[in-house]
Amino acid sequence: MKVKGKNYKSIWLDKKKLVVVVIDQRLLPHQFKLLYLKNIKDVKKAIQNMVVRGAPLIGVTAAYGIYLSMKNDPSDKNLNSSVNFLKDARPTAVNLSWALEFMKKKLLDEKPPGRADVSKKTAEEISNNDIKCCKKIAENGLKIILGIKKRKKNNKTINILTHCNAGWLATVDWGTALSPIFLAHRKKIKIHVWVDETRPRNQGSSLTSWELLQEKIPHTIITDNAGGHIMQHGMVDMCITGSDRTTANGDVCNKIGTYLKALSAHDNKIPFYVALPSNTIDLNSKNYLKDVPIEERSSDELTHIKGINSKGKNTKIRITPKGSKASNYSFDVTPAKYVTRLITEKGIHKPSKIEIKKIFS
Amino acid sequence: MKVKGKNYKSIWLDKKKLVVVVIDQRLLPHQFKLLYLKNIKDVKKAIQNMVVRGAPLIGVTAAYGIYLSMKNDPSDKNLNSSVNFLKDARPTAVNLSWALEFMKKKLLDEKPPGRADVSKKTAEEISNNDIKCCKKIAENGLKIILGIKKRKKNNKTINILTHCNAGWLATVDWGTALSPIFLAHRKKIKIHVWVDETRPRNQGSSLTSWELLQEKIPHTIITDNAGGHIMQHGMVDMCITGSDRTTANGDVCNKIGTYLKALSAHDNKIPFYVALPSNTIDLNSKNYLKDVPIEERSSDELTHIKGINSKGKNTKIRITPKGSKASNYSFDVTPAKYVTRLITEKGIHKPSKIEIKKIFS
Repeated sequence: MKVKGKNYKSIWLDKKKLVVVVIDQRLLPHQFKLLYLKNIKDVKKAIQNMVVRGAPLIGVTAAYGIYLSMKNDPSDKNLNSSVNFLKDARPTAVNLSWALEFMKKKLLDEKPPGRADVSKKTAEEISNNDIKCCKKIAENGLKIILGIKKRKKNNKTINILTHCNAGWLATVDWGTALSPIFLAHRKKIKIHVWVDETRPRNQGSSLTSWELLQEKIPHTIITDNAGGHIMQHGMVDMCITGSDRTTANGDVCNKIGTYLKALSAHDNKIPFYVALPSNTIDLNSKNYLKDVPIEERSSDELTHIKGINSKGKNTKIRITPKGSKASNYSFDVTPAKYVTRLITEKGIHKPSKIEIKKIFS
Repeated sequence: MKVKGKNYKSIWLDKKKLVVVVIDQRLLPHQFKLLYLKNIKDVKKAIQNMVVRGAPLIGVTAAYGIYLSMKNDPSDKNLNSSVNFLKDARPTAVNLSWALEFMKKKLLDEKPPGRADVSKKTAEEISNNDIKCCKKIAENGLKIILGIKKRKKNNKTINILTHCNAGWLATVDWGTALSPIFLAHRKKIKIHVWVDETRPRNQGSSLTSWELLQEKIPHTIITDNAGGHIMQHGMVDMCITGSDRTTANGDVCNKIGTYLKALSAHDNKIPFYVALPSNTIDLNSKNYLKDVPIEERSSDELTHIKGINSKGKNTKIRITPKGSKASNYSFDVTPAKYVTRLITEKGIHKPSKIEIKKIFS
């Protein structure tokens, strides 16, 4: 997608220097800066510190991490320890372990001397497949948007609410929840996006808004609190979010607060869609209250906030009283009954056990 | 309630200087500073800029504003223009117009020479009644907390979630939603409060947390997004919020985001209480989608945020990209069906038309 009019991806391999290049997402929207990951430690840090984030991108970054490690030491021992080293970088998104297992399987089939090459190719393959997958999600999601356009008549603007950032910055390109929006906009469908701020890290107001600005798509930032009100007042035609892990029953684990928006959409009879690559589905997760580990991040993300001061300088400030504790649960689970449809690269599916089984057969 | 161990109210008349003293709530939790309102213009500015906020306190402040105005010019003309001047300071809380109408009625019964005195007495009366009323709410709410304590057994901690600030800073003393909590704590009932941050002005994380800290009540600040997750996981025994306006049908207009918490409480079978002085009930509001004006405040409250930097200095920073629009709806309405009970100074009521009629008969 576009950054200042130029096409970018969120991650790529610099083929001369053999380093992995990513966008430092912690500095957006105020600063656009590339970061170079030279080894597996850089990769783990980038995932943990959320230089890169978003379930699909975490997976791709980890795959490149295995390549950087294999390049130096392609032994079985190093392969196993590298996979284990990255596996717990973040707990919730299932793509991380999916990508690592995929790499491991491919590499165990290969003798060590060939592993640098195969890991490079496989990481590139995962990355390219992610792009193809997101483009497919865009096409499938577009069908839903076109359906709404038909019902609205008079070429009225379609209002879409999204939570967090499931745009191209969360994947390699195109995104999941935002990809149908990008595609619809390119097809000249009139769209306006309500962008949930998404506290505490504000991925909505800092990343989603930035992506939409770059693509010149009309949008309005709102607090996470406001979604219910605008839904009650007929100002939302559909909701769409991404997913970090979807259970075998169709329950959707996504950024904290997604569940509240789904409840409100349900209460106001507004369709609530979840866009995801099918590798985000975890058939081993059945009971969403027990099987999905919910990351609890540092309370510092809630007590302090970063931005730019009046002189344009990056500044971190404390916004809560010293002495008050804060908890920072990062994800929640939206039960399948509040999800209208899952949109994957394979099609549009009911969030049910039977349909999910079908996707995988 | 306590500030650094000393008893305070949120507003009082300095009887020597004949000025109204308030706490500048915009500076909390980082700074405790009193502000002196000398005339009606000061009063309007204080209400508009949210030096004072909270439906009951807005009403009391406006009443004192009429006194400050009558002191200088007790004419009918000035009385009418003063009431009109303050009436639109903020649109949503019904207490503002309630207090102004109450003052006006009393003062029209009085000849101009006596109006300075009567307005002083009446404002003091409204203020004192607010304290009594909140204390009654505390006692009524305590019954509910005691009921939960009984069911929980083993003297386990009771977890209460609240949104925004309906503490003593929103009233004159005691508060509405927080008053039963203060009272329960003084009666040595083990309580822990989940404090919703309450974007965009963060009245939860800056005022509620500060009040609880001063009273030494255990609490944890969470993002507005987190309430659903903790309710799903059995970490909340009850919710309690205030109300800026309650309709004749029992629908509750309160700080934006209240509706989302009520939906989640409903979905997880957790009781959702609303504590309010009965003068917050507006019998003229029937259709909550049409009859309740929802204030839309400056988008600056969302795009920028204040706090203290690493040197302890008050600092304002921008947190959203330049070029992105933001909307700042300040209230929403929770339909009566999601409210377990209303707690007023008169008792504990079903949020229904019939019961509400009873409160007023």
